[in-house]
Amino acid sequence: MKLIDGKLIARELKRKLQEEIVANNLNPKLAIIMVGNNAASEIYIKNKVKTCEELGIKVNVYRFDESNYENDIINKIKELNADQSVHGILVQSPLPAKFNEDYIISFIDELKDVDGFGTYNLGCLARDEEKFIAATPYGIIKMLEYENIPIAGKHIVILGRSKIVGRPLLLALLNRNATVTIAHSKTNNLKEITTTADILIVAIGKANYITKDYIKDNAVIIDVGINRIDGKIYGDVDFQSVKDKASYITPVPGGVGPMTITMLLYNVVLSAKNERKKNNG
Amino acid sequence: MKLIDGKLIARELKRKLQEEIVANNLNPKLAIIMVGNNAASEIYIKNKVKTCEELGIKVNVYRFDESNYENDIINKIKELNADQSVHGILVQSPLPAKFNEDYIISFIDELKDVDGFGTYNLGCLARDEEKFIAATPYGIIKMLEYENIPIAGKHIVILGRSKIVGRPLLLALLNRNATVTIAHSKTNNLKEITTTADILIVAIGKANYITKDYIKDNAVIIDVGINRIDGKIYGDVDFQSVKDKASYITPVPGGVGPMTITMLLYNVVLSAKNERKKNNG
Repeated sequence: MKLIDGKLIARELKRKLQEEIVANNLNPKLAIIMVGNNAASEIYIKNKVKTCEELGIKVNVYRFDESNYENDIINKIKELNADQSVHGILVQSPLPAKFNEDYIISFIDELKDVDGFGTYNLGCLARDEEKFIAATPYGIIKMLEYENIPIAGKHIVILGRSKIVGRPLLLALLNRNATVTIAHSKTNNLKEITTTADILIVAIGKANYITKDYIKDNAVIIDVGINRIDGKIYGDVDFQSVKDKASYITPVPGGVGPMTITMLLYNVVLSAKNERKKNNG
Repeated sequence: MKLIDGKLIARELKRKLQEEIVANNLNPKLAIIMVGNNAASEIYIKNKVKTCEELGIKVNVYRFDESNYENDIINKIKELNADQSVHGILVQSPLPAKFNEDYIISFIDELKDVDGFGTYNLGCLARDEEKFIAATPYGIIKMLEYENIPIAGKHIVILGRSKIVGRPLLLALLNRNATVTIAHSKTNNLKEITTTADILIVAIGKANYITKDYIKDNAVIIDVGINRIDGKIYGDVDFQSVKDKASYITPVPGGVGPMTITMLLYNVVLSAKNERKKNNG
């Protein structure tokens, strides 16, 4: 069994991004909208800001609180849409319950939707006309590519069907010629499905749920889960149980996690390149 | 084995649509754009017009030929978008090779995209926020519902990944809690995949390709294929081979085919209802 080292792959990708920014004299800029004071969100934002600074990507964080109206946030989005120096806009999830997150993000210009969560970008994925691919799915694809694990023709089973992981991943893998199965909490006979997977990708948010009985010999296991229990972090896959049966595994932590911010910034740089091309064309 | 009678189900649905139009005093109207003189398209349009007239749906066909510019068609679409009496706009496919079909249909107002082929409507499907579902996938779902064949939790395998059948069907079935696999021309070990299906839906355009070796006992078989050979029509499924092994089959002709126009008009009526609601709200 080989570990897929997400930290290492992310570092490589960040180095390439940095080179690309310098070589093309790009001035990428990301705008982050933070609403309320969720502690986990603060950590994510801190990491995003830090990584932007490492790479030479400008970043501004715009803060709102529960006393604000949805329209305050939407007006800021409209202002950022119109600001030509901004290449990416993201709203840090989750928002406090009083806000309609889907409604708010629907105002982000499709050309600056670097999270790829909007209807337009998902529709493009569904039509095999990819623009921005959401960061976690894209990170998983980059990890498979880095390890030279074939995607085309392989049977890939995805557990979990969220809008930010399972659904975009399903479409992006189909576009890369995989045979894809998507299973979820309503699936009957889950083991019968997962044991047919050449590559099993698990994003269900249940600590250590997938044991060796769920996988076939030499399967590639991608563990998207980040479950915090008593201050420790667990994946969705029981690492000890599967480690002698799988051919590759992503560890938790240090697997898919480190790829996510990197692929977000990959999309910001892509957006800056797209804007350059448009202005030169 | 039971035959799923698409003609009968379509007739029932059309009767209900007709009742709904009368009861709600709707004035649904469909605009069809026809470019060039494809003989098969002429037959499809004739059937659409005839069915509209049967149901009390107004319909206009706007004709263009190869000497027209793309902009002539796009300007007509813009005019129809602005026309409040029109609830659905469709461009009859295929267009002559000089025209970019995807580009042209991207101008159809998302609220009038009754074919459901546009990026917005596919994005809504991908986000589990369904607006218009493309007619053939929707027809398949209505047939399964009519026969009380469960979808939730079942393993459904789709063969074929076109933008108008496989891809929207994948998303619509996932939204209905099926476990869904999508396979295609690049799939390795196709039989291993298809023999695990509770419901197998075949849309590959290869006459009689699927024989009994490809299916499991008591599988439900939905045959989307319409292959014309020497003036005869064949499905993608070898009916004689599978008929004693399957629990249900859609015949060709008389299965999925008759549902398609019906579900298109279902969407036109839905659009008329949506517009009524908007104006009353």
